Amino acid sequence: MDVLSVPEERGRGWYLSLMAPNTKGSNFAWLDPSRLYCNHQAFSDCVKELLQPFQNESVDLVAGIDAMGFILGSAVATTLSKGFLAIRKAGHLCVPTESQPFSDYSGREKLMEVRNDVLRPGLRVLLVDQWIETGGTMRAAISLVEKLGATVVGVAAVAIENSEGGRWIKERYRYSHCIPETLQAQIDRQHLDSFHSFVSLTD
Amino acid sequence: MDVLSVPEERGRGWYLSLMAPNTKGSNFAWLDPSRLYCNHQAFSDCVKELLQPFQNESVDLVAGIDAMGFILGSAVATTLSKGFLAIRKAGHLCVPTESQPFSDYSGREKLMEVRNDVLRPGLRVLLVDQWIETGGTMRAAISLVEKLGATVVGVAAVAIENSEGGRWIKERYRYSHCIPETLQAQIDRQHLDSFHSFVSLTD
Repeated sequence: MDVLSVPEERGRGWYLSLMAPNTKGSNFAWLDPSRLYCNHQAFSDCVKELLQPFQNESVDLVAGIDAMGFILGSAVATTLSKGFLAIRKAGHLCVPTESQPFSDYSGREKLMEVRNDVLRPGLRVLLVDQWIETGGTMRAAISLVEKLGATVVGVAAVAIENSEGGRWIKERYRYSHCIPETLQAQIDRQHLDSFHSFVSLTD
Repeated sequence: MDVLSVPEERGRGWYLSLMAPNTKGSNFAWLDPSRLYCNHQAFSDCVKELLQPFQNESVDLVAGIDAMGFILGSAVATTLSKGFLAIRKAGHLCVPTESQPFSDYSGREKLMEVRNDVLRPGLRVLLVDQWIETGGTMRAAISLVEKLGATVVGVAAVAIENSEGGRWIKERYRYSHCIPETLQAQIDRQHLDSFHSFVSLTD
């Protein structure tokens, strides 16, 4: 399907087939979800589906995770008419921050940071990232929100893998994602199978 | 002003006083504009003001620059009901790309990349970044859009400094920013003066 065309029939998650498969080998992610944002209807339907489980929740602020979570998070914030808070990789923010260490997918210790003058008790925060793989970054983001006394309303991402960290999040927080149940197994098997299988099934 | 409060009187650029001054010294940016995104009215007014000069232009796609340009760009795309294209720092995209070298503010050679399966002749693109300082990154983004045959409708950022690169952009493209004329001189003098002066004037 051409990246900018909009089909007349649009079932749940129709836009997932717009995601681009990896062509560069194992040093890169297995697919690139960001291609779907280029299609305005796909982008808008994706945001709408992500927000459905939260329609009866009050949200004060949307927080998105550096860097691809900024795109989806900002679209979610704009759609809800809420503010957007950036949760950043360490070393970028020129203001006082709270920081939280975590291990990334390769086991390396990293830090996430958030400015410490916005989050406060009583503030209800929806956390958004593009894709939750090991869950390490999202768990660090959850810790940052809670350390500063704010409340995590829920967690939203295009996909949440059933990794240890992904399950930890799903067991403890409201969540939403765009992957139909019939495709979740392929998301979870991604590192075993060819990275092409998921995309070919949804094409 | 509290970061989340909304004043009754809101003149053009009122939200600039929400930007946070640097507290970490000269290895960091002189201020952090992203604090204004936390305030929903500030975020929305900022986007509205950025779009004003383009209201009679047709835009097919909004492109935002990695990483902070993703936040503003995605909000602009969502407000316009358009798709969003990520222009990325090199090495992240797992798909075929066009790339463009540029020199950053410190003179180091870097690369910007964009997927090569979306931009095409006839496509009208609005480019968004958070802040245009030397203009190197934005000029690389302009080159990428034009190399792939698409048209740059314009360039939008919270601020465009009157650096050599900033002026190059302003002379050749439609542009918009949020800085009132009375404050532009302070933006341009930022590296000479204390980084506190701009913020104190707008407070």
